[in-house]
Amino acid sequence: MQTIYQKMSDAELSAALEDLNARVAEVKARGLKLDMARGKPSPEQVNISRSMLDLVRADSDLTDDGVDCSNYGCFEGIPSARKLAGEFLGVAPEQTLVLGSSSLLIEHDTVAMCWLKGTCGNAPWSEYAAAHNGERVKFLCPSPGYDRHFGITADLGIENIPVPMTADGPDMDEVERLVAADAGIKGIWCVPKYSNPTGDTYSDETVRRLVSMPTAAPDFRIFWDNAYCVHDLYDEGDELLNVFAAAREAGIEDRVIAFASTSKITFPGAGVGFVAASPVVIKEIASHLKAGLISADKMNQLRHVRFLPNIEAVREHMRKHAEFLRPRFECVDAKLHEGFDGTGCATWTSPRGGYFVSFDGPEGSAKRVGALCRELGVTLTPAGATWPGGDDPRDTNIRIAPSYPSVEDLSAALDVLVLAVKLVSAELAHEERA
Amino acid sequence: MQTIYQKMSDAELSAALEDLNARVAEVKARGLKLDMARGKPSPEQVNISRSMLDLVRADSDLTDDGVDCSNYGCFEGIPSARKLAGEFLGVAPEQTLVLGSSSLLIEHDTVAMCWLKGTCGNAPWSEYAAAHNGERVKFLCPSPGYDRHFGITADLGIENIPVPMTADGPDMDEVERLVAADAGIKGIWCVPKYSNPTGDTYSDETVRRLVSMPTAAPDFRIFWDNAYCVHDLYDEGDELLNVFAAAREAGIEDRVIAFASTSKITFPGAGVGFVAASPVVIKEIASHLKAGLISADKMNQLRHVRFLPNIEAVREHMRKHAEFLRPRFECVDAKLHEGFDGTGCATWTSPRGGYFVSFDGPEGSAKRVGALCRELGVTLTPAGATWPGGDDPRDTNIRIAPSYPSVEDLSAALDVLVLAVKLVSAELAHEERA
Repeated sequence: MQTIYQKMSDAELSAALEDLNARVAEVKARGLKLDMARGKPSPEQVNISRSMLDLVRADSDLTDDGVDCSNYGCFEGIPSARKLAGEFLGVAPEQTLVLGSSSLLIEHDTVAMCWLKGTCGNAPWSEYAAAHNGERVKFLCPSPGYDRHFGITADLGIENIPVPMTADGPDMDEVERLVAADAGIKGIWCVPKYSNPTGDTYSDETVRRLVSMPTAAPDFRIFWDNAYCVHDLYDEGDELLNVFAAAREAGIEDRVIAFASTSKITFPGAGVGFVAASPVVIKEIASHLKAGLISADKMNQLRHVRFLPNIEAVREHMRKHAEFLRPRFECVDAKLHEGFDGTGCATWTSPRGGYFVSFDGPEGSAKRVGALCRELGVTLTPAGATWPGGDDPRDTNIRIAPSYPSVEDLSAALDVLVLAVKLVSAELAHEERA
Repeated sequence: MQTIYQKMSDAELSAALEDLNARVAEVKARGLKLDMARGKPSPEQVNISRSMLDLVRADSDLTDDGVDCSNYGCFEGIPSARKLAGEFLGVAPEQTLVLGSSSLLIEHDTVAMCWLKGTCGNAPWSEYAAAHNGERVKFLCPSPGYDRHFGITADLGIENIPVPMTADGPDMDEVERLVAADAGIKGIWCVPKYSNPTGDTYSDETVRRLVSMPTAAPDFRIFWDNAYCVHDLYDEGDELLNVFAAAREAGIEDRVIAFASTSKITFPGAGVGFVAASPVVIKEIASHLKAGLISADKMNQLRHVRFLPNIEAVREHMRKHAEFLRPRFECVDAKLHEGFDGTGCATWTSPRGGYFVSFDGPEGSAKRVGALCRELGVTLTPAGATWPGGDDPRDTNIRIAPSYPSVEDLSAALDVLVLAVKLVSAELAHEERA
């Protein structure tokens, strides 16, 4: 698609550039300081969980189903928390572990387990290269995706292979083709519901194809980070198929390892992290993690289950979160429509949940837009961050994180983004002609 | 030294065996159920920290020196907690990280960092074997020592080498000889104060020799788990030299990585863990850990620093813990004197802090004593656990953990231990004659 700037006559384009540059100068003079970079809730939104802090006090019963939460023991997590984790992730409590505050850390340690020790009797991934002419272990990375996922595998020396992300999840034709042919492809990173950053949810067909596709690697693993499983903006949320049920149906439940946490439900960074897997694999993960852990923070687990005793309580609490997030997401969508309708300069997603909007400008624009916004006082997630290695091949994608700023600040930040994309689009059109 | 049973005539020994077996039968009939296996505080002792739970409430200020503890960020730990960690470990706050609830996990992840990535520009430890004719990386394990330390290195495929533990710390002649000759020896596990299980504290000379000894490995690391740094039983505690000051003096501060936590200060398993190292190494550790962690649980850090704002407050709180522990340690010592003085059957330590007493029976007795105690309803830490691979070469050592039972139960359990050691000693003397 052509942008309006590409369609202009030379004279029109010069005039447009002059106008846009003048507006940029005006904005620069205002000395803004706005942040749309981080997927963190606003302080007011965080405050809705404060009452949780009063549920475990000096005079409280500190036991859960007979487990003393105030002393060592109960590595797997307290009974009520495992029950809740099972409801989150669609498995029996026995197929879960409830650990510390970071699901990212559990993801890291689970990949590290496969790397150092292997899984289900297969050789450690770290030994793959030596046995295969130096060929590295690879991971599929639906892109745009979550930079910290890609960072975990990159950190271990695993090669990240981008595959296109679609509105239905990863491009399954491409995924199936790759995993069938290459035994070095050992896993895929998935944020299946309200994906980071597109906000799209995997279709039932995508889930079924992921768990049933033939893979050359016998130890191929799906890292299913269901980070936004209850993070709906509207009463009617996206529906995600139960991946474990689908995997059991396909006869390969060992393929799926699922994660979630309460970080964006109660206190970011101070929540409770979960992992779920098949009976065989969850035992393997527990045995691996026990080398470094006597037991996780059960006091925080207790605080959480007293605040959120079941999934219904979670959903009710999430409706309060949605009241903060919905106007922000709607502001983004409205501002982008207002700024770009009819310009051919941009496409973007309109998620019904999660924490991000994925934005695409013209080819070759994203890094320049990021730099210009920074000059104008608006911080965005670094362009390229949504691709493995920070390398967005078409340099189009920007992740918008609308949750932290006030609606007013967000609105101002989006005005800046719109202006920056327009100026860069016009500059690109001008450069094409030179 | 000979036991009284070895010195007896055959007739005397037969009579003694008959008497001991009769007493064992009596005890068995009582159906006891007592536990001296685990280094965990008693429920009453844990309760002294309950008031901490009221210090972070729904209406509390949730910031620390401007840092919002209720949201993501501040990976290194909140300012007040890093200051406290610095006081614990004898370094500037900038040389610390304050992380989650488990210092064992930080130890695990730090060894894993060296294994996967190397430290200070040296090759990853995982590559050592391939470059040295398959020779494995080795760690020195002062023994008797802490089984979970040995487990971390064993888990990564590192070879654990026991070195004798003395009242002044590891046998430094042996340590110096080993590390000077073998570049594959990459580290040593140390619990320098009130060592687990002997309760002995490293002498100043031991600390100085450890930080200044020549090592064939340029990347030799001391894993300094100062788990009991404030865990004195008496007002006058053991004094441990500041290892970082000594290392700086020796010109090799990068050699030391120190750990501590509040697990046995506030709530076991739900405390706050610290790590300290040289400016170069702490930066390296932070960078490694950031691959899997956005930020640790700062709410729990906040709760802790409000309860324990500085090291003086910690010491005052520890005096309350000592009131629970001191009578238990004194009971152990009295009971062992009462049971064994003049028998030649046992030696043991009399620690002035920490959580354990190290007990040695006659050669070849410990596994049998453990099994017999179990039959009699008393659980001990498995014999051998204090040696790498669970292999106590002389089979003498038993770790006594007196903290959890009431003094009454502890006293009953020690009666059983004394009886079991005597019976096994008499049986050994009898078998010698057969």
